[in-house]
Amino acid sequence: MIRAGVVGASGLVGGELIRLLTPHPELELTFLGGSASAGRHIGELHPGLREPALTVRHVTEATTGRLDVVFLATPAPVSADLAALLADRIPAVIDLSGAFRIRTPELHDRWYPAVERRADLLRRFVYGAPELVGDQLADAALISLPGCHATAITLGLAPLALGLGLPLKKVLVDAKSGSSGSGLRLRTAALHPLRSGAITPYAPTGHRHAAEVTDFLRRTRPGSIESLSMSAYGVPSVRGLLASIYVFTDQVVGQRELQRAYVRFYKGHPFVRARRHTETRIPVPDPQAVLGSNFCDVTALADEDGGRVVVLAALDNLVKGAAGQAVQAANRRFGLPEETGLTMRPVMPA
Amino acid sequence: MIRAGVVGASGLVGGELIRLLTPHPELELTFLGGSASAGRHIGELHPGLREPALTVRHVTEATTGRLDVVFLATPAPVSADLAALLADRIPAVIDLSGAFRIRTPELHDRWYPAVERRADLLRRFVYGAPELVGDQLADAALISLPGCHATAITLGLAPLALGLGLPLKKVLVDAKSGSSGSGLRLRTAALHPLRSGAITPYAPTGHRHAAEVTDFLRRTRPGSIESLSMSAYGVPSVRGLLASIYVFTDQVVGQRELQRAYVRFYKGHPFVRARRHTETRIPVPDPQAVLGSNFCDVTALADEDGGRVVVLAALDNLVKGAAGQAVQAANRRFGLPEETGLTMRPVMPA
Amino acid sequence: MIRAGVVGASGLVGGELIRLLTPHPELELTFLGGSASAGRHIGELHPGLREPALTVRHVTEATTGRLDVVFLATPAPVSADLAALLADRIPAVIDLSGAFRIRTPELHDRWYPAVERRADLLRRFVYGAPELVGDQLADAALISLPGCHATAITLGLAPLALGLGLPLKKVLVDAKSGSSGSGLRLRTAALHPLRSGAITPYAPTGHRHAAEVTDFLRRTRPGSIESLSMSAYGVPSVRGLLASIYVFTDQVVGQRELQRAYVRFYKGHPFVRARRHTETRIPVPDPQAVLGSNFCDVTALADEDGGRVVVLAALDNLVKGAAGQAVQAANRRFGLPEETGLTMRPVMPA
Amino acid sequence: MIRAGVVGASGLVGGELIRLLTPHPELELTFLGGSASAGRHIGELHPGLREPALTVRHVTEATTGRLDVVFLATPAPVSADLAALLADRIPAVIDLSGAFRIRTPELHDRWYPAVERRADLLRRFVYGAPELVGDQLADAALISLPGCHATAITLGLAPLALGLGLPLKKVLVDAKSGSSGSGLRLRTAALHPLRSGAITPYAPTGHRHAAEVTDFLRRTRPGSIESLSMSAYGVPSVRGLLASIYVFTDQVVGQRELQRAYVRFYKGHPFVRARRHTETRIPVPDPQAVLGSNFCDVTALADEDGGRVVVLAALDNLVKGAAGQAVQAANRRFGLPEETGLTMRPVMPA
Repeated sequence: MIRAGVVGASGLVGGELIRLLTPHPELELTFLGGSASAGRHIGELHPGLREPALTVRHVTEATTGRLDVVFLATPAPVSADLAALLADRIPAVIDLSGAFRIRTPELHDRWYPAVERRADLLRRFVYGAPELVGDQLADAALISLPGCHATAITLGLAPLALGLGLPLKKVLVDAKSGSSGSGLRLRTAALHPLRSGAITPYAPTGHRHAAEVTDFLRRTRPGSIESLSMSAYGVPSVRGLLASIYVFTDQVVGQRELQRAYVRFYKGHPFVRARRHTETRIPVPDPQAVLGSNFCDVTALADEDGGRVVVLAALDNLVKGAAGQAVQAANRRFGLPEETGLTMRPVMPA
Repeated sequence: MIRAGVVGASGLVGGELIRLLTPHPELELTFLGGSASAGRHIGELHPGLREPALTVRHVTEATTGRLDVVFLATPAPVSADLAALLADRIPAVIDLSGAFRIRTPELHDRWYPAVERRADLLRRFVYGAPELVGDQLADAALISLPGCHATAITLGLAPLALGLGLPLKKVLVDAKSGSSGSGLRLRTAALHPLRSGAITPYAPTGHRHAAEVTDFLRRTRPGSIESLSMSAYGVPSVRGLLASIYVFTDQVVGQRELQRAYVRFYKGHPFVRARRHTETRIPVPDPQAVLGSNFCDVTALADEDGGRVVVLAALDNLVKGAAGQAVQAANRRFGLPEETGLTMRPVMPA
Repeated sequence: MIRAGVVGASGLVGGELIRLLTPHPELELTFLGGSASAGRHIGELHPGLREPALTVRHVTEATTGRLDVVFLATPAPVSADLAALLADRIPAVIDLSGAFRIRTPELHDRWYPAVERRADLLRRFVYGAPELVGDQLADAALISLPGCHATAITLGLAPLALGLGLPLKKVLVDAKSGSSGSGLRLRTAALHPLRSGAITPYAPTGHRHAAEVTDFLRRTRPGSIESLSMSAYGVPSVRGLLASIYVFTDQVVGQRELQRAYVRFYKGHPFVRARRHTETRIPVPDPQAVLGSNFCDVTALADEDGGRVVVLAALDNLVKGAAGQAVQAANRRFGLPEETGLTMRPVMPA
Repeated sequence: MIRAGVVGASGLVGGELIRLLTPHPELELTFLGGSASAGRHIGELHPGLREPALTVRHVTEATTGRLDVVFLATPAPVSADLAALLADRIPAVIDLSGAFRIRTPELHDRWYPAVERRADLLRRFVYGAPELVGDQLADAALISLPGCHATAITLGLAPLALGLGLPLKKVLVDAKSGSSGSGLRLRTAALHPLRSGAITPYAPTGHRHAAEVTDFLRRTRPGSIESLSMSAYGVPSVRGLLASIYVFTDQVVGQRELQRAYVRFYKGHPFVRARRHTETRIPVPDPQAVLGSNFCDVTALADEDGGRVVVLAALDNLVKGAAGQAVQAANRRFGLPEETGLTMRPVMPA
């Protein structure tokens, strides 16, 4: 068994990692780390979980010494410090925060001003998008997981930008997500009475995941995308996000060609479900159809009237957008079959 | 116009009072009081409200001097102090907290240990249940509004206990309510992700509204009720509560007689809607059918198999369970028609 | 009193008209019309409503003969027939369907193929957007109410297109709405278990309200808008919609100028609440902050990074998007103060 | 591999069986049966599922000939017919309907009047409550799964009635459940707008699961329960139910003794989580803490004031209340470890 630890055990992403690792047949959860929650038992933090019988401990060289892999589900500034501490001591560090996602210095500093940029460390991180980085994850020592919105947007755009090689001139993203995306921070607006009926423009004129996407696409294929503007909204669900991606291109692509491109691009990638063009009666992506699973459903629709391609990408922000993709990356890192411990199907309806 | 003030303007009940008073044709909202929120404009506290153009002020003799009526939507200990300050200075003080609801000293001290019992003041308060206290509200100087659950339970039991004069031996209440009943206090369990899917036994073995109900019924008609046990649950709605009241009696009462008794008891009381027995297709009470309105829907069902009467009472906890009933009491206090400013119909669906 | 009738009484919009008309001080609801629901009492159709004590009747010349105004809350093809029947017989016919919204013949025929175009009748209809049509509503005999999305989008664009006279080159609308927008038609996807967690792209590549908006704007000011593409989504709330309107212009407009333009444009129009630029702490539009009321909250945000203006417009689809706007139009039609019967404030939280 | 079939594939329980069987390591889903949905592909019926690549077929001797086990997720009358057809032809028939749950003839006929009672077949069925029937499931040919409410209530009462041997004089159950309990039948009241805010007394004076519970308990231990009355409510969640079980006994049992009795009774039964009395900070049962999992959380609370024991039992009605318990029973039937394919942890929050 590969010994795994989760730091940030009291948060929603931490809880989701515990949910997925507990029954995982090859990764054994042997350590829970945290600071404010140190000393507390798992069942106090996550009422649905009672095992493994672990108590949260402070992260030190001593407490983490015997781990093979550690997942950091911590705020970006904490992740930055912990990655510096644990790199080279633990075979694999997988960071789920934004601390090491953006490589371009000025973009990093603009969107993560509270995270000191450590150029040397940053350079060593692999961007943990399993479907898009080839075999870079095999034996990677440091892995930075994409953001939840960034995962959906990048998986939505990749078949166009990296598959068809279509230069994307103007991309507009309207992202809709449930309340779990904001974690458990105490704020009045996050209380149930006020959040229940809300359709809230929480980032109407920009979001750092937009910078992450363009940074990754341009790094992977220079010139692949010109501009991407994003607006983000909270809607009254708990889990799941839908990225509506409106792509304006000079080149017309028909519906049949689009669907073929998407199916071809994700062939062999079981967690991205692109609709085949014959499956006319399978609905367009909706996050409820992936809830609790590691799937990302992606569809591209030609809107010739509007002179645009409408790409829809849906995923569970806590699974494919965080903990599930982290386990998927760990599986790849340790040479396990990619689906190990991730075979659960969507819990629908929920 | 009668000049009205609301203290505790930043809370949910305070906001609801503002909502109802703003278009009220006879009561003019001229003062908002509070401490932590002092200096803030109404629109910052309640995003749906922009008027009247008032800013929250500290409650002092000076700031409240010109008011005809003040509504206290404050925590019980604060209400106790404010009532002492304002009694005899302002013609009418209407307290929406629990500070002055229970008269029996030992019950008061058990359920409101943080509220100093002021026997002299307590004695002067009228229990503000407009349908149940006859003309006591006319010219009352001090009015204590019933609790939200207590309103539903008392309105549900009164036709049996006070109308038919049936001695109630054993009553069991299972109360179900939405998240607005807990107000806006910051707690992790009240955050949207954790509260959304919950059916939470928040008071499984007792609730102070049970003591309030027995206290009132016994005061009104000695011997009318022997025991009442209560369990309270949060369900995933925002507004509204349903009290399921299971009454075990020695005396069998048939369905037809029950319905007649309820309709008769509430004749002339427009805000309590008891189903006539001919209206077979009108559904049993459900809080969504009273949302936003001052109605309380009540039905009694004979369950001869179970040897019990099942009474169902539904109301909007912020309206008939708080702000609406307070305005209704104020109308009665000032000799206005009872429905003044309260003619809004249920917002359904919502 | 002005005698009013509602046809289509069993639907959600019909129920909302009853909710608003029952306590209206000048319009008296004296007739409920319908076909499938004929003979049924109001309380059977809408569990929250018990009055007025009317039973649904078939619409004929005889049954509607004494009405001053009739509201048609019927499907577009039914409205088309009823308008033909009732025009010239009843002083005012207010149609809430799409039958008479689009004037350009080819657009009408494309988006309403099931509605026979009656050019003569169509020509006589006034487009019932009270804030945008000046005094056309005074004494209008035939009024066609805008669609719910169209209301939000048009109110959101008007200060730019009609106020500032900014030529709108490319407009992209991403509309998010609750389930009440789809009415009560029985469909599996509309059942609670399947709709509860959904973020559903129900019209990802186009919506007829887009045609309605461009038709109206071009008719009102030729050349004001070049293209508008729209995608529509269902989110897991019941009431309310938010239109996210992304406007790409050649001309840069600063934030301060934008806000001034919006406040100026809606001066004197109490139902459109444009944020003043000093009210920095009042949140951007969210439909929960207008629930149950006739308000439309509108804000424009300059996004210079994205080279766009982000306009957000929120309203309650059943009130300002349907029944409330219809009553507002009726008030204007009969020379009543615009707010008569519409003074209710938002029910928040709900 | 053991070849499994699911009949009633288009319903919610059918979909849940597919969800659980697809990744099951020992049971291979090789057949989907249905009538109205015959010919349809799995992805059309359940948007979250795309595999296995099966199409629904009519149930005949030929189509089901090679199965080792068939799960009937069909209405009770259909199950009755199919069980008669398939018994003795297929090694194991597991019926999830109510057709074979009640043994006492008069109770069966009263609560399942539409299901012809086949005494010979009924006698051969094992009641599929894995924690309560010892080794009766090993090699059982015919298994009748308990109802969802009945599972919660029986698991809640068993430690008292069968463990402590406490005679239960009067038991009152107030059951609260989400909308998925009603399946996908098209009804206006089940539409999202009308069901979203509802707290609906759908069976206020009785429910057939009450008869099922007393029938089972008396059969297992004569005299164990005198009377059980039940009221059932729909609340605005999708999955999950909470049974509030109020037990009035003559004998006082203290809190410590209660908890010990529950923990002891369920020792060795991994799917029933009874709270240990030292775990004071683990919350009382709430269905959200078991969502998507096969757990049933049970707690008993002594309420000496109320002269009662309050037992709370929470489960996911589609998992432990249906498909999960069915797979658990199949595991036991075929000698597999009980947890095979059921190791998923609760999806919380969702």
